[in-house]
Amino acid sequence: MSKVLIIGAGGVGGVVAHKAAMEKQHFSDVMLASRTLSKVETIAAEVEQMHGRKLRTAQVDADDVPQLTKLLKEYKPQVVINVALPYQDLHIMDACLEAGVDYLDTANYEPLDVAKFEYSWQWAYQDRFKKAGRMALLGSGFDPGVTNVFCAYVQKHLLDEVHYVDIVDCNAGSHGKAFATNFNPEINIREVTQIVRHWEDGRWIESPAILDDASIHFKFDYPQAGAKDSYLLFHEEMESLVKNIRGLERIRFWMTFSQNYITHLKVLQNVGMTRIDPVDFNGQKIVPIQFLKALLPDPGSLGHNYTGKTVIGCVFEGAKSGGEFFRKYIYNVCDHAECYKEVEAQAVSYTTGVPAMIGAMMMLKGVWKGKGVFNVEELDPDLFMDELNKCGLPWQCVDFDGFLPE
Amino acid sequence: MSKVLIIGAGGVGGVVAHKAAMEKQHFSDVMLASRTLSKVETIAAEVEQMHGRKLRTAQVDADDVPQLTKLLKEYKPQVVINVALPYQDLHIMDACLEAGVDYLDTANYEPLDVAKFEYSWQWAYQDRFKKAGRMALLGSGFDPGVTNVFCAYVQKHLLDEVHYVDIVDCNAGSHGKAFATNFNPEINIREVTQIVRHWEDGRWIESPAILDDASIHFKFDYPQAGAKDSYLLFHEEMESLVKNIRGLERIRFWMTFSQNYITHLKVLQNVGMTRIDPVDFNGQKIVPIQFLKALLPDPGSLGHNYTGKTVIGCVFEGAKSGGEFFRKYIYNVCDHAECYKEVEAQAVSYTTGVPAMIGAMMMLKGVWKGKGVFNVEELDPDLFMDELNKCGLPWQCVDFDGFLPE
Repeated sequence: MSKVLIIGAGGVGGVVAHKAAMEKQHFSDVMLASRTLSKVETIAAEVEQMHGRKLRTAQVDADDVPQLTKLLKEYKPQVVINVALPYQDLHIMDACLEAGVDYLDTANYEPLDVAKFEYSWQWAYQDRFKKAGRMALLGSGFDPGVTNVFCAYVQKHLLDEVHYVDIVDCNAGSHGKAFATNFNPEINIREVTQIVRHWEDGRWIESPAILDDASIHFKFDYPQAGAKDSYLLFHEEMESLVKNIRGLERIRFWMTFSQNYITHLKVLQNVGMTRIDPVDFNGQKIVPIQFLKALLPDPGSLGHNYTGKTVIGCVFEGAKSGGEFFRKYIYNVCDHAECYKEVEAQAVSYTTGVPAMIGAMMMLKGVWKGKGVFNVEELDPDLFMDELNKCGLPWQCVDFDGFLPE
Repeated sequence: MSKVLIIGAGGVGGVVAHKAAMEKQHFSDVMLASRTLSKVETIAAEVEQMHGRKLRTAQVDADDVPQLTKLLKEYKPQVVINVALPYQDLHIMDACLEAGVDYLDTANYEPLDVAKFEYSWQWAYQDRFKKAGRMALLGSGFDPGVTNVFCAYVQKHLLDEVHYVDIVDCNAGSHGKAFATNFNPEINIREVTQIVRHWEDGRWIESPAILDDASIHFKFDYPQAGAKDSYLLFHEEMESLVKNIRGLERIRFWMTFSQNYITHLKVLQNVGMTRIDPVDFNGQKIVPIQFLKALLPDPGSLGHNYTGKTVIGCVFEGAKSGGEFFRKYIYNVCDHAECYKEVEAQAVSYTTGVPAMIGAMMMLKGVWKGKGVFNVEELDPDLFMDELNKCGLPWQCVDFDGFLPE
């Protein structure tokens, strides 16, 4: 028996549920839980119809540690797959410790009132997980997640010294809406309105937010998607990679944004709609970005008409010991419409949910094990890389001779 | 004794209060009332400091007809100057009828739940005002208001047949904010998101809203401000002018909008922030455009740093009886910073508030009198035109040889 509890019934939760159901030999018993029972029931019904398999469902408030602990003690999963909101990470980790269950997530904890991406809060659980003899795996989505595995793979097999890493993340898809975000709009907008950072020569270097006219961007030529304007952005996996990849001299993260998307966000920021502090309105406290979220299309609803591809990967520059420097590019191309056909989700949810499922599979099989809190690149990449190819996220590793800014 | 009650303590209310205080011979006793007592007290203190004159102040909910009627019966003004919200027009007219007081406003009634500009609701009061022996003067701001007076003046003195009227409204000012509206944002945004109409050959012709890519616009060359993109827009004065100006074949209204303003409004419309229907949010009903209003700068706060000019006027084409056709352009140029120096308001408030004061002056002096509901162009324009020159809104009448679309 290999039991998992998936928490979260958004787009990613749906993908994890579908894929776990499809990998019956590794996931013999799956429960899907969320604050909103109707959402998990909808996903469970879809899964049953498409893959002929019944999932268990439960209603749980992931912020209510005693309630969640009770559910864990009753159901006794081996792993909790947390694909709820990042604000809930610590509460779910607390409940896992309380109930003695391994933990996995795809996005780092963020406090509700600060737009900040860092692992400090979760790394602080190191001793408690060690002492409890439990494993917490942080950031097992695509980026973070697969990008970290690519780094570990390159370090293990291709390069003795990895000097430069450029993570390049392209969504060349179209959802046909004037404006929508591809995952939780609140998280999405917090991400792109933050000050940008990259790491170079042992320190973090700040640059203007992508909405700033002085933001740093260039056209990267993505396989199958073509040249797309890609913006320098801070992304959480860099924080752990600079600790865990030997000899790293620079790491940067780039993400594509359309001019339309940037214009919309600039306006929303100008009028104050991206604010995360509460505003007085008719005697009530309203957080503008949360109200905006209520107005925007549900990211889960975008899949139906989504066309085009995502192309996410890493360009590495380094050398075999003493040898010449060379550059490698490892990437995956994922098609929105094909994802929807398979699991009724677009590729942004798919590329996050599949690696979460694979990460849990690694833990259930004992391929990835340990006591304490881990980032993905600290574990052996080989079987995870194999499963990517088998489970819908095939990767390519090619020599890279394209352009990257100095 | 000539007593007036001003209702409304926004930017326009402030201007009317200042200007009435400055015209002591015509306004011997002035009361300023609003839902928020602190606002009227702030204005009264400003007026006393700048013009050495004490105004009366009162707190009143203009939607509470009995409460307002009581105030009117106690204070016994000759005229109520309504510069509150357009939603409140009918309640204030009801109270005026109840208390036997003449009425004046600057903007037509609008229901809260329909973005619609028309006089039907207020014209329906015709018989009641007639029967009560009272006068209601509708739309005595700049446009409507001064533009209607310009039409009446041209019809009286310059042209026997007025065939074409083009009202051209330019705000070439700068408030230095990324985005703000110049008067109540809710009313402003309702206005520019509506379907456009103009009147030609005896019927209304619809065209796309200004936010539509197919909207109709051209560069009009404004005196002192230069050529500015001007968009075809429906504006309420056209509804009465087509009834009251003899021989009219076409009337259009054009207003300048910057590309920045249009981009902001397009985005806000795309994300649903201009919606006037309530949205469910955390169990509450929130009207997006009202929440947006709470986020945007208070239009009254823009005056301090406002620079540049407004240029509003009308181009007329017609003929003296049997003579040749010719074109005249009557306009006013108003400077934001000079307005602020005089009455601590920007020119958009100033150009609305001064004609409201002059309209009330016409009624107090008995120059404009009658029983029933009137639009401004139904009354004699001559003394009003004189007062514009004396009270800060001087006008020019010139031959026009510029470009207008066919």
